Amino acid sequence: MIKTPYLLFLGDAPDQLAAKVAQGIKDWRPDNAVGQFRMEGCKADVGLTDMTLAEAWDAGAKTLVIGVANRGGMISAAWKSVLIEAVEMGFDVASGLHNLLRDEADLAAAAAANGRTLHDVRIPSVKYPIANGVKRSGKRVLAVGTDCSVGKMYTALALDAAMKERGLKSSFRATGQTGILITGEGVPLDAVIADFMAGSIEYLTPDNDDDHWDIIEGQGSLFHVSYSGVTLALIHGGQPDALILCHEPTRSHMRGLPDYTPPSLEAVRDVALTLARVANPACEVVGVSVNTQHMSDADARAYLAKVEEEMGLPAVDPFRHGAERLAEALEAL
Amino acid sequence: MIKTPYLLFLGDAPDQLAAKVAQGIKDWRPDNAVGQFRMEGCKADVGLTDMTLAEAWDAGAKTLVIGVANRGGMISAAWKSVLIEAVEMGFDVASGLHNLLRDEADLAAAAAANGRTLHDVRIPSVKYPIANGVKRSGKRVLAVGTDCSVGKMYTALALDAAMKERGLKSSFRATGQTGILITGEGVPLDAVIADFMAGSIEYLTPDNDDDHWDIIEGQGSLFHVSYSGVTLALIHGGQPDALILCHEPTRSHMRGLPDYTPPSLEAVRDVALTLARVANPACEVVGVSVNTQHMSDADARAYLAKVEEEMGLPAVDPFRHGAERLAEALEAL
Repeated sequence: MIKTPYLLFLGDAPDQLAAKVAQGIKDWRPDNAVGQFRMEGCKADVGLTDMTLAEAWDAGAKTLVIGVANRGGMISAAWKSVLIEAVEMGFDVASGLHNLLRDEADLAAAAAANGRTLHDVRIPSVKYPIANGVKRSGKRVLAVGTDCSVGKMYTALALDAAMKERGLKSSFRATGQTGILITGEGVPLDAVIADFMAGSIEYLTPDNDDDHWDIIEGQGSLFHVSYSGVTLALIHGGQPDALILCHEPTRSHMRGLPDYTPPSLEAVRDVALTLARVANPACEVVGVSVNTQHMSDADARAYLAKVEEEMGLPAVDPFRHGAERLAEALEAL
Repeated sequence: MIKTPYLLFLGDAPDQLAAKVAQGIKDWRPDNAVGQFRMEGCKADVGLTDMTLAEAWDAGAKTLVIGVANRGGMISAAWKSVLIEAVEMGFDVASGLHNLLRDEADLAAAAAANGRTLHDVRIPSVKYPIANGVKRSGKRVLAVGTDCSVGKMYTALALDAAMKERGLKSSFRATGQTGILITGEGVPLDAVIADFMAGSIEYLTPDNDDDHWDIIEGQGSLFHVSYSGVTLALIHGGQPDALILCHEPTRSHMRGLPDYTPPSLEAVRDVALTLARVANPACEVVGVSVNTQHMSDADARAYLAKVEEEMGLPAVDPFRHGAERLAEALEAL
């Protein structure tokens, strides 16, 4: 568990998109961040107060979170001096970068000398069990996609917000680096050893109140040959009561796989439900979340209406129209 | 790749069953073993010539293979002295034990001093790629099970032997510890990091002659919630042209999961084929392999006849009746 609140490190971000982790924290857990730290030449701004390390420390910040992707995969000398200053001041540091904080000898030494923790959220910090398949109390919903990167995390975060707005008990359960940094905890599923994947999701979504919903962030797709095993471990480890199908209708091929055509929503529904019912015979598909960012507003509404009629399920773009109807569908289950 | 031929270390095996890795090597790759090494009190015998280390070395053995499960998970002092003597004499050592050879400081030091290799086949020794899904040349068949431990490795090894007997080109592709020790190479799939599972199977089964068959050892089951993700990675990484369904009909519940009923062969066929066709639209189920060890001969024959009629596929117990009919089915594809 990463200590909150955070100071968000934007470094020398070349553009706004590079700071999407910081933006996600600001959008979804604004109370987790006291401010942003920008270096000379930073082209991103997530709209928080600019602070020095000392100002953030005085404002109560406990962890400096790398909220930006690094160029060329290196942790630069300019970044490093800020990170070392931060641990010397008492901050922990958290990062989802491929290059691990712990592999930077000077930073690791400074953290050790000051008793601070470096959180590399790409790497599991827990020895997960093998899944036992035992039925757990509480309710769970999982976002499953026709492809990778279709908006599963966004859907889950929006649904969690909509559930809470209705006064329902819910927890967003992160399964990827960005989600873990946003919420401060979770399972970096793509880095878990094969035998323990489903067990890590059981660990992430333990027994809970009967009226509590875990909103589990999806990964990959049953139809994406590179990552489908990860998706199935989520379905079986999560033993979801409900599935939400996530889709991006303008793709001509699966992400990173030029020879693979995206499946239909119906195909994903059928195979995901068949497999989900192995772990939870009561599982139902309750809604469709469509990422319409590449469509006009009129086209998006027409597409959603068509999906809604064909599938007999509420279909929304949570970014454009909110996730209230998905929360309603869960409440009605 | 583990250097052959082997000397099979049976240690102080308490019974024959404990030596099943050695028995597998003797049964399936007899040319890979020059003899067996038994310590005082050993209760197993795989029927090879008993040899000292020096005799085996003179007979050309290159690797001492731990062919026995160890009691209590410890590598005992008695074993250790043999292993150290072996590396000092020039042997590599290979093991599929949970306790790693490399974690035994004295053994590791002796191996380093003598330039010998310790093969811990539970741990991947390769940095596998992420799967790219590109169609490969050559043919592949994968054993998929209704459950774990239903005879998928045996089926694949028997099929490989039957293919070779028919003069066809085939390679058994090991995906578990025992299979790796039997053949000297393979992927320990259950220990691979999630993101690289399917890629490891692409790596294991590369482009090949158009008339060559990779016989891929299956793992887990799409219906076993602990390991299903591993199974799906095999299906998508292997892009099989053919599936063989493996079944043990007398089980009342899934292995290790008392609340889970084994699926029907039809259910496994339908979902496995749907998923396999994502990676290879031409994939077909070509046969059924039934483990009838808990049935009388008459019951086994009656059961196989019933499956054959219901599924419209050849159904055999390769242990009792050989795998020729499965090889025929592949040849006819």
